[in-house]
Amino acid sequence: MPEIADVPLDKAYLLLNHGPVSLISSAHGARQNVMAAAWLMPLDFSPPKIAVVIDSRTLTRELIKASGEFAVNLPCRAISRQVLAAGSQSGRDADKLQQLGLGFRPARQIAAPLLDGCAAWLECRVISEPENQRRHDLFIAEVLAASARQDLFSHGRWHFTDADSHTLHYLAGGAFFATGEYFEADATGEKA
Amino acid sequence: MPEIADVPLDKAYLLLNHGPVSLISSAHGARQNVMAAAWLMPLDFSPPKIAVVIDSRTLTRELIKASGEFAVNLPCRAISRQVLAAGSQSGRDADKLQQLGLGFRPARQIAAPLLDGCAAWLECRVISEPENQRRHDLFIAEVLAASARQDLFSHGRWHFTDADSHTLHYLAGGAFFATGEYFEADATGEKA
Repeated sequence: MPEIADVPLDKAYLLLNHGPVSLISSAHGARQNVMAAAWLMPLDFSPPKIAVVIDSRTLTRELIKASGEFAVNLPCRAISRQVLAAGSQSGRDADKLQQLGLGFRPARQIAAPLLDGCAAWLECRVISEPENQRRHDLFIAEVLAASARQDLFSHGRWHFTDADSHTLHYLAGGAFFATGEYFEADATGEKA
Repeated sequence: MPEIADVPLDKAYLLLNHGPVSLISSAHGARQNVMAAAWLMPLDFSPPKIAVVIDSRTLTRELIKASGEFAVNLPCRAISRQVLAAGSQSGRDADKLQQLGLGFRPARQIAAPLLDGCAAWLECRVISEPENQRRHDLFIAEVLAASARQDLFSHGRWHFTDADSHTLHYLAGGAFFATGEYFEADATGEKA
């Protein structure tokens, strides 16, 4: 098992800044679920907030509405098959985590599970904004805690190791991009 | 000059689904400006809507407030230096487009310029939501028109050519990821 370390809250936005696809996990009472979400972005630095679109017909929406909480899990390429399946199946039919064979660990601040096979995790509490939820399926939430695989993210920087460890960007129809080459641009001179 | 083609409005979200960094261009009267924005996501399919965070202190915010319009430009790696500069300098000091040496063409539906060196463009009209703007610096807009370099995006799919053509994902401190390897996952069987 890779070692997992806390990410300071003021650096939590750095986990999402590059626009990776996410798995949203949720729980209420004995029920839990996972869905895929590509429409997700940071909204503020400190306290860290995020915005995410959660379709009104999903079980996830129901569990989030009941619990006021969810976790953002950033899947590695190794589980791209499960990301696709999480986005295509409904948790109303069967326990999706079990069906996908996704292990998990408990979160610290919320009841939603933190999924194995991921690079980083954000524990979120919904900020009540009924208008945004109703009009746009848009949920705004505060990040209460963040953690990441220490071999992949530390000191506010991603440093992916093998190809299977990269985060993902979702296109459509089962197609993804892996997060690609890291480089630094030079604003003052020529392209680095 | 690469050929540019219209993107059907119901496919406009596919330009943003993978979470690339953007350049937001704006204009009002004789003034125009460009800023970098990483906090941007699709919000709806049809009519296509997007959500983007625009800091209240920026000239871009002022121009968008006055005009009710902006363009989302998706820069290619070839202009990463300009993306970084657009995010670090203020347009209040000098004409930033001129300073960056960024050429542009007129949009069809709005006054904001469409920037050269980019892979795709979305022409957007702000939907009036004063509460979101005030509380979260969050702008929700309808996409009125979309276009893309035909060699890079067609039939609802990205197909980047050389390394300089890839879209970008912003990290922090001048660091980017290029959009990486394309692959398809198989939800029903083993990982493809």
